[in-house]
Amino acid sequence: MEKIMTKFINSPEAVTAELLEGYVLAYPDQVALAAENIVVRKNPKSEDKVAIVTLGGSGHEPALSGFVGDGMLDCSVVGDVFAAPGAQRLFQALQLMKREAGILLVVLNHSGDVMSANMACQLAERAGIKVRKVLTYDDVSAGIGAPKEDRRGLAGCVPLYKILGAAADEGRSLDELVEIAERYTANSATLAVAMRRCTHPQNDAAITDLPDGIMEIGAGQHGEGGGGRKPLVSADATAAEMVDLLCQQLQPKAGSKLMLIINGVGATTHMELNIVFRKAYKELVARGYEIAVSRIQEILTVQEQAGFQMVMAVLDDDHINYLKNKPSNAPYWVEIGR
Amino acid sequence: MEKIMTKFINSPEAVTAELLEGYVLAYPDQVALAAENIVVRKNPKSEDKVAIVTLGGSGHEPALSGFVGDGMLDCSVVGDVFAAPGAQRLFQALQLMKREAGILLVVLNHSGDVMSANMACQLAERAGIKVRKVLTYDDVSAGIGAPKEDRRGLAGCVPLYKILGAAADEGRSLDELVEIAERYTANSATLAVAMRRCTHPQNDAAITDLPDGIMEIGAGQHGEGGGGRKPLVSADATAAEMVDLLCQQLQPKAGSKLMLIINGVGATTHMELNIVFRKAYKELVARGYEIAVSRIQEILTVQEQAGFQMVMAVLDDDHINYLKNKPSNAPYWVEIGR
Repeated sequence: MEKIMTKFINSPEAVTAELLEGYVLAYPDQVALAAENIVVRKNPKSEDKVAIVTLGGSGHEPALSGFVGDGMLDCSVVGDVFAAPGAQRLFQALQLMKREAGILLVVLNHSGDVMSANMACQLAERAGIKVRKVLTYDDVSAGIGAPKEDRRGLAGCVPLYKILGAAADEGRSLDELVEIAERYTANSATLAVAMRRCTHPQNDAAITDLPDGIMEIGAGQHGEGGGGRKPLVSADATAAEMVDLLCQQLQPKAGSKLMLIINGVGATTHMELNIVFRKAYKELVARGYEIAVSRIQEILTVQEQAGFQMVMAVLDDDHINYLKNKPSNAPYWVEIGR
Repeated sequence: MEKIMTKFINSPEAVTAELLEGYVLAYPDQVALAAENIVVRKNPKSEDKVAIVTLGGSGHEPALSGFVGDGMLDCSVVGDVFAAPGAQRLFQALQLMKREAGILLVVLNHSGDVMSANMACQLAERAGIKVRKVLTYDDVSAGIGAPKEDRRGLAGCVPLYKILGAAADEGRSLDELVEIAERYTANSATLAVAMRRCTHPQNDAAITDLPDGIMEIGAGQHGEGGGGRKPLVSADATAAEMVDLLCQQLQPKAGSKLMLIINGVGATTHMELNIVFRKAYKELVARGYEIAVSRIQEILTVQEQAGFQMVMAVLDDDHINYLKNKPSNAPYWVEIGR
């Protein structure tokens, strides 16, 4: 019997190439394909400024390539579904982006991405390409205070792309950008909650398969699990528990200016995301914090997974300035607070 | 036995109030609640310009209130989930928006919304409020050339909000805005395709309940059906069939400048939406058309329904100008082609 399709795709092998082709056709003024699976700005910025590059598997749209554009990423190097792009392709992208000002490579902490990045950077150094890496490791599901090697990179990378893109546009040096990035990553944290079944588009295998009415706080982006499964509670109870865990990790001082993003990962409705945001906001204000930057949006998805990621950061004024006051034309970045 | 929750909500009765509260907390620089279920701009525009107002039930987030902001809607009047807001609330909003330049009320063709709008406009006229209505009826599932009374308002309203908001900012008169709107609605068409089950957040009843592997082209926004059910085919075959039907309706002349939007309605991934866009774009270019405005985004959803709406319009140059070259800070409007 022929397999039943449940997604709008053509050949499973072609999903990454076809989605990227559709993407650059839809946003021709902002992005282009420089080579297979290498998304760049339509209008490259001047070479005296540091290039911001990232890498990661497809299947998380609009991330990561949705944030290529003026004022954000210069280049996104795309792997197949949930797979790292490999060192050779990343090296190819670093060659394209080569410049005296240097390249800052933002790497989400997933083993394949880290391995690709390390190998590509070795190749780049041998080829005389100036490149530095910064790791994002915002997931807190490994436990409060867990070492950063044990913490995965989740949706917290996206605001970092904005901060770095704006700072690079201002002419900040590679060393300065590394400092800005590390100050952000040290003060950002994300917690994911998953619900219901979702499937891999290429083999229809369950990425996660939670029974109705069960949720998992601390889920990863590819069904890694890592959290506890328990019966779904109310939006308010879920939000309060997640805020508490994130605050335990970040330990913001009273009066801190926070970023709060509720990132829908797929099937959970914007309606629900708004309701969750409402409670998280109120919890944080009750703790004496100011919400300086906020957003409710699908920025990094996990196929048709139900659930969301709560992304939080303690921001400095220059982070806030780069997030709020510098325009970007990346197709999925919505300006904040204009 | 207690009912199993499957959505992140609190009380089913409170979803609309709570989601709107979360929304205005997340976007405090752009939107505010003027009264219960009445969303307005944070910074009202000058009263010598026509106000653009719309109405509709909740449950379709980010529409409709996500498009309130500078350069788009002045006011969105919200009903409960999938329910019209009622004439009294709409009248209240018209009183708030009252001005000599007048109010243009954009009404999606759904019986409850139309009835609320007609009654509220009668009340407004008696109260000396200058208001005109424009109806959107982009759905083509009733058949090619069906009378507009039989055609529902789908996601095609969103670009119209942008066009009207930009034109009103320029100081166009109420009569001129009606003409601009009717020229758009006469030349726009949408087709929706649904797949899989989704549920109402208040009673957990199935809004649509399609078996795995079955799709329905011509589905409405609330499970009205109206299309034919058939086994899911490839993304390319689906896109080609929908493009053909939309072109039969619109009959664009060779060389026409088109708008093409793939609107995800909930659970269908951005990955799939990109793949569908790719084929639709190629089909239209092969027919001799130019894609002048394009987007892949969830602008109007149907809870966690899988599927999408293909929104198409034949645009005049002034429509293109209003869509592309005039900024808006509405929280869910992403600038096109900067």
